[in-house]
Amino acid sequence: MNKIKPRTLSGFMELLPPSQVCFNIMVHKLRETFSLYGFTALDTPLMELTEILHAKGGGETEKLGYTLRKGDTDLAIRYELTASLAKYVALHYNDLTFPFRRYEIGKVYRGERAQRGRFREFYQADIDIIGDGGLDIINEAELPAVIYRCLTSMGLERFYIRINNRKILSGFFEIIGIKSGAESTNVMRLVDKLDKIGVDKLRASLTDDLELSQAQTDEIVSFVTSSDDPFVALETYKGKNETFDEGFGELSVLQKYLAGFGVPETHYKIDISLARGLDYYTGTVYETILSDYPEVGSVCGGGRYDNLTGYYTDRKMPGVGISLGLTRLFSILQEQGLLNEALLSSPSDVLIIPMTDDLSHAVRLATSMRESGLRAQIYSENKKFKVKVSYADKLGIPFVVFLGEDEIEKGLITVKDMSTGEQTTASSGMLTAGICEKIKVLQKGMPICEKS
Amino acid sequence: MNKIKPRTLSGFMELLPPSQVCFNIMVHKLRETFSLYGFTALDTPLMELTEILHAKGGGETEKLGYTLRKGDTDLAIRYELTASLAKYVALHYNDLTFPFRRYEIGKVYRGERAQRGRFREFYQADIDIIGDGGLDIINEAELPAVIYRCLTSMGLERFYIRINNRKILSGFFEIIGIKSGAESTNVMRLVDKLDKIGVDKLRASLTDDLELSQAQTDEIVSFVTSSDDPFVALETYKGKNETFDEGFGELSVLQKYLAGFGVPETHYKIDISLARGLDYYTGTVYETILSDYPEVGSVCGGGRYDNLTGYYTDRKMPGVGISLGLTRLFSILQEQGLLNEALLSSPSDVLIIPMTDDLSHAVRLATSMRESGLRAQIYSENKKFKVKVSYADKLGIPFVVFLGEDEIEKGLITVKDMSTGEQTTASSGMLTAGICEKIKVLQKGMPICEKS
Repeated sequence: MNKIKPRTLSGFMELLPPSQVCFNIMVHKLRETFSLYGFTALDTPLMELTEILHAKGGGETEKLGYTLRKGDTDLAIRYELTASLAKYVALHYNDLTFPFRRYEIGKVYRGERAQRGRFREFYQADIDIIGDGGLDIINEAELPAVIYRCLTSMGLERFYIRINNRKILSGFFEIIGIKSGAESTNVMRLVDKLDKIGVDKLRASLTDDLELSQAQTDEIVSFVTSSDDPFVALETYKGKNETFDEGFGELSVLQKYLAGFGVPETHYKIDISLARGLDYYTGTVYETILSDYPEVGSVCGGGRYDNLTGYYTDRKMPGVGISLGLTRLFSILQEQGLLNEALLSSPSDVLIIPMTDDLSHAVRLATSMRESGLRAQIYSENKKFKVKVSYADKLGIPFVVFLGEDEIEKGLITVKDMSTGEQTTASSGMLTAGICEKIKVLQKGMPICEKS
Repeated sequence: MNKIKPRTLSGFMELLPPSQVCFNIMVHKLRETFSLYGFTALDTPLMELTEILHAKGGGETEKLGYTLRKGDTDLAIRYELTASLAKYVALHYNDLTFPFRRYEIGKVYRGERAQRGRFREFYQADIDIIGDGGLDIINEAELPAVIYRCLTSMGLERFYIRINNRKILSGFFEIIGIKSGAESTNVMRLVDKLDKIGVDKLRASLTDDLELSQAQTDEIVSFVTSSDDPFVALETYKGKNETFDEGFGELSVLQKYLAGFGVPETHYKIDISLARGLDYYTGTVYETILSDYPEVGSVCGGGRYDNLTGYYTDRKMPGVGISLGLTRLFSILQEQGLLNEALLSSPSDVLIIPMTDDLSHAVRLATSMRESGLRAQIYSENKKFKVKVSYADKLGIPFVVFLGEDEIEKGLITVKDMSTGEQTTASSGMLTAGICEKIKVLQKGMPICEKS
């Protein structure tokens, strides 16, 4: 028979077991953290009618989205989680209670050209709070706390959250005489790039490309670079424009509560140049930057929007949400060597090596260890002793149990601690309890380990 | 703007939050149990090259599989997890250690006509043990224990595992003069249906459709219906055929160890009429039947196979595995009213209702409760008091905290236990500890609750 060459599609992350363990712990930490803040888990279909998923339309969507036809139905595979959420909320409106807090951690698909750090299949971890008619600003102050706890619970400390309110920029532009609409949008898009292009390029683009006056350009540059104490700059323009004042007010409330929610001052930065995706967000916006790797851009961003379900209903459903690109974050951490290699990633805690033909004792021992919560495996292949022990070694299994005739006669077991080489013979009850204690310590390892 | 009607594709299960919580606990129990037996988690891509996923080919595969074309690449969406495993093992052979124990819980897709209990998108939970060159029979004795523990850990008790070894049937057919190959395969297919068609129909089909002699038919019927004490029937034919003896030997070893692995006699049944999928399995086969709902068929089955990676390599890689159709099992349990309605399925443990304009105290309280591991949410919408309390009620949140000026002044909080209506005012530290204890009890609920 002709053999097929086994291979995985490019842009599709497929991990070896130890990395998968690390990835799964990250997912678990996210779930735990999201739950602490009262978010409930959803798991929506990966496929929907194209009409539903591509309701937004536009070139990007249609270019990047995977679509297929089955029978006479046009199907699309989701390329983000928000469209599915909007459909869910509109469809199940009567069965949900608002504000509705949900999280979803799931795979999404984008037919992009695969390149370093760009995936075609990747996990997004989204949380959103959806209000019915309105949604209090306090929710917007809470999300940075969720980001902070998510990342620190994984072992990451060197990051900060950029926060702004887009109403401030819109209002400010109006104050200095830039028309709302296309002109304002173009200016905002440029300002949002300040981080990447720098002040000189921003200045040049504002005057040359957008044909703003020198005065306007100066004022914009001075305003958006006042990030050491942004509130001083904001005070200057207060009372001149309603939108501006609204944004300023919201940002102030948000900042007031951040400390109470547990976000230290070291981990956020009010940055009035931040605008993010231009069409969707209407107020608060967030981005999360890895302090040592600003060049990779935001690893977790989001913001406030006013109309989640507009394609389905006239009901006003505002919300605020963030999205963490988990696969991308994982691949960055892996590339930078920030994953904790000391993490317990073995498939089991104990490998039982029977030294007799009859395996009854080994089987019963495995069963009782499992009752105690230990992950136990019997090595039963007919191989040389050395091969059996090296199996544990290769897989990083921390404890090996030898069960020979001697031990069985005396009702004892012999345990080898693979990290120290130490061997102990004693009752299985005592040794099982000892292993349980040591495993608990090993399990405390965090997936991310930053270099000091 | 024209509104789109929000809807979910038929055959795609989309759960409301409380059911999703129940489903997720089932997934969690599976993960925990698989881990106890030394299985490591994989998470393979949902899409592969069509050439890879449809290597097996055949009408069913091509009819049921979802395929698409992106650029000049033919892609297929997985319709089961085994093809992905085979590719994974062949591709990463050098990085894996054998026997390789993996589990994968993931969505698979089949473009079947959607009908009751049939899904187009559904979860499979698979475990497999893959050997390199060989694999000891003890592994086959272990899998019923995994099934037993998976289901009992969810709260299900009324089920049993059917076990057989296909070599017994093949050998037996040879003994009574049925040629191996097509004839034997046809007889096996009929015998496998005994459960569904009954003895009379089996007898008629064997003589009329397959034109077996009366003597052959009698002997088959007598053999496969001897399930009250199958080992007596097996002894009768011992020593007459090598394949038969091999199968008998394997089944005996398997039975010998089942009790040690923790499977009670009440929960398995050696059933020599069981054959399962005809092409793939070569030895031990399993099925799991819900005692009260035999008509839904097997909810978890599998068996031993000799050649996992044949499409990719000449290396012999035998294995044994089982697959649990989680979405289907869940939908059966739901339909039969067997899901535990008392399960704690609220998005949070505590709803904090601030009674002051300034939310600083509420925010700090929420943060400290979260530090204690409680899932806490602040209700901050500007609504009537009644609406706020009814929010907790609707979502089944077990505790509500009232934080008014009185409490804040005295440094206390008031907690209402929603199940009893009881209200207590005391220090937040004391009440938080009390809530934690009560939540621990509530969390002990199992997802499945059988009627007595």
